[in-house]
Amino acid sequence: MSRPRPLSGFPEFLPAQRIVEQRVLDSLVETFELHGFGSIETRALEPMSQLARKGEIDKEIYVVRRLKAEPQDGSDADALGLHFDLTVPFARYVLENSGHLNFPFRRYQIQKAWRGERPQEGRYREFAQADIDVVGLESLAAHHDVEVARVILEALERLHTDFGVPPVLMRVNNRRLAEGFYRGLGIDDHLAVLQRVDKLDKIGPDAVRALLAGELGLSDEVAERCLELATISAPDASFVERVRALGVSHPLLDEGLEQLADVVGAGAKTAPGRVVADLKIARGLDYYTGTVYETELSGFEHLGSICSGGRYDSLASDGRTSYPGVGLSIGVTRILAPLLAKGTLTASRTVPSCVLVAVDSEQTRGEADVVAARLRARGIPTEVAPRADRFGKQIRYADRRGIPFVWFSSGEVKDIRTGEQVAADPDAWEPPADDLRPVVSRA
Amino acid sequence: MSRPRPLSGFPEFLPAQRIVEQRVLDSLVETFELHGFGSIETRALEPMSQLARKGEIDKEIYVVRRLKAEPQDGSDADALGLHFDLTVPFARYVLENSGHLNFPFRRYQIQKAWRGERPQEGRYREFAQADIDVVGLESLAAHHDVEVARVILEALERLHTDFGVPPVLMRVNNRRLAEGFYRGLGIDDHLAVLQRVDKLDKIGPDAVRALLAGELGLSDEVAERCLELATISAPDASFVERVRALGVSHPLLDEGLEQLADVVGAGAKTAPGRVVADLKIARGLDYYTGTVYETELSGFEHLGSICSGGRYDSLASDGRTSYPGVGLSIGVTRILAPLLAKGTLTASRTVPSCVLVAVDSEQTRGEADVVAARLRARGIPTEVAPRADRFGKQIRYADRRGIPFVWFSSGEVKDIRTGEQVAADPDAWEPPADDLRPVVSRA
Repeated sequence: MSRPRPLSGFPEFLPAQRIVEQRVLDSLVETFELHGFGSIETRALEPMSQLARKGEIDKEIYVVRRLKAEPQDGSDADALGLHFDLTVPFARYVLENSGHLNFPFRRYQIQKAWRGERPQEGRYREFAQADIDVVGLESLAAHHDVEVARVILEALERLHTDFGVPPVLMRVNNRRLAEGFYRGLGIDDHLAVLQRVDKLDKIGPDAVRALLAGELGLSDEVAERCLELATISAPDASFVERVRALGVSHPLLDEGLEQLADVVGAGAKTAPGRVVADLKIARGLDYYTGTVYETELSGFEHLGSICSGGRYDSLASDGRTSYPGVGLSIGVTRILAPLLAKGTLTASRTVPSCVLVAVDSEQTRGEADVVAARLRARGIPTEVAPRADRFGKQIRYADRRGIPFVWFSSGEVKDIRTGEQVAADPDAWEPPADDLRPVVSRA
Repeated sequence: MSRPRPLSGFPEFLPAQRIVEQRVLDSLVETFELHGFGSIETRALEPMSQLARKGEIDKEIYVVRRLKAEPQDGSDADALGLHFDLTVPFARYVLENSGHLNFPFRRYQIQKAWRGERPQEGRYREFAQADIDVVGLESLAAHHDVEVARVILEALERLHTDFGVPPVLMRVNNRRLAEGFYRGLGIDDHLAVLQRVDKLDKIGPDAVRALLAGELGLSDEVAERCLELATISAPDASFVERVRALGVSHPLLDEGLEQLADVVGAGAKTAPGRVVADLKIARGLDYYTGTVYETELSGFEHLGSICSGGRYDSLASDGRTSYPGVGLSIGVTRILAPLLAKGTLTASRTVPSCVLVAVDSEQTRGEADVVAARLRARGIPTEVAPRADRFGKQIRYADRRGIPFVWFSSGEVKDIRTGEQVAADPDAWEPPADDLRPVVSRA
């Protein structure tokens, strides 16, 4: 076999890059579990009938069939596809297991997903996502909209402080707020307005104004107010007064303003400077019904949103029972693949090993094994040199991998970075805390 | 949507079962990393040309294509398939990245794999594997055959002692030993003998004797010696004398005997009683070239081997350079899905939360949030009650999930299992160590 080449859109990491990814995932898991979110995993494959429910994305699905499937194995309708996100499988899991789950059910889910899109930086055909959701039985209190934002902001802030991942800016809006505002202006088809206002960043205010007047027949004054609402943005509850100043009132508007103020207020307390109310954010026009979130990575805005989500009145429904939910999804690969490719984040070594035990000769390899076992018994990752080469070569073996310490049969351990060599007892010696595991940091 | 039904062969776990799986995987990772094995992950998809190299398994491959792939996207030869193990993708990864890896390269890999086989207990269409391998550049010392067995035995023994997973019995053999023995008897086609001896457990000694005489034309005496070799089994190096007593000699036999004695001797030291030399084990006739391993779970022998592997003279080759390897693969789903389905292994609760902070009223939810944040800041997984119900109902919320402690705004914390309630400071209180995280144990 000749040397294989990478598949475009399917990023794979070298061992040191994978250490960065592992640390990031461990950190996310720790934050999620500290907040009482439990893990689930769902199978990679879903029936196509499930995946194709949202017509817009069916082009991107990977269909899966057995190589030698028998004709009687069924039609395309029974075919399976790789999931393209973790929300559709989660909704299916909730329905399938509802009798065995306690509601509100709080879960996180960290898995790969697949989309057959054209690959580009930040957009991959295979990518890892880290989702949290809270789902209720028939109802779900608004404070969960606040909670998921806080958990995610805490998780992302920790990636920033612990590993040097760039800081984020989360933009939050509320669909009830917009709907109430438009209804208060006498507009029935609020979705039609939202669709056009959503283009503000792309086509500019004049073009949106023209669409609102031309396509929807709104008066200049009403169109102007819709635009004014969309331009409001604030890092705190001050946006409420600015909306009120537009002189529109509607019960849905009141509800949306209160919910949004709660999310932004609590988010700012959790991670000051990382959250804003941004009243032009729409997202997923057809399924979100309340709070919507999207998040940019500072300095990497061209990647698009690295963490998005929102509130669904009905995340899942079996016809009799409805399961409202709210959640957010972190695009782990979207964040990490560009940072790793650029070398922005690095690990201090390429292997877990903190110590390499040198071997004097193949005859005494057993003694080196015993030393290694004693170090491991105290939680110190240790490997034994693969060959009884001269010590200079064994030290180079460690150095090439970034292993900081080499242990000699003389009962001495050398820090190969400083050259310092001291007598040590394998039942007592401790490496400096920072050397026990690889350290991840910004290059 | 009506209630969906599970897909046969695609096991999914409920939250408490998933906690068991997480603990088991964490334990494996810890053991692997203590021995200096680093993690890699490979993409789920490989070109069909890679996957189909071993003709025997092509029926089981899942082929993947984009739902709306254009005709010019290429023929079936360029198609992609889901990997059916982690060895083929690892070999491809080594070739693709050989210039960036340090050899001997030691990696673990824990991922799902897919096979379209008929599902049954212990055999799934989607399953998690945990592999370790050491791969060398052109050569790889025999002590790595010893090492991987020790690492795996230590890992499996820890699952037994820490979580109550049944103990294992690893059977080890060496293909050089058998080849040398057959050659020493004057047999050229050693693989033909091995294929027939491999059927010993299925068809019995008389039938094997008949095959060896009838199909291969071996004399009764030579056939008998082949059978005698296959019946030798021992938990220590005593098998060496029994083989010698058969009076056959060949350099390959000597080499195989020494390697096998080393693996079994070291394995017995690592995990006494968990390893035997079993000279009838063949495994993967066409690619293993030295040590071979297979492993049964005591009391669950009907599941087949839950951990297998061996030595490849050439795990991968690009025509110029050859990469010999040795490794083992733990069938995580094969072990866990039956034990979880039977309720043999359980978690002490269904959520990570150690503490539920009760809420007096929605107006004071913020105070509960503050208490929760202070507990979390000290690493105590904590959630806040979703509703300001009467306390009895909030305690039931905790009880249903197995959360052991409920914190009240009075500054008291109740162990809801014993009813004991004490005054506590959220900046100082510690739960008993066993309550901090869910405990996994044998039911």
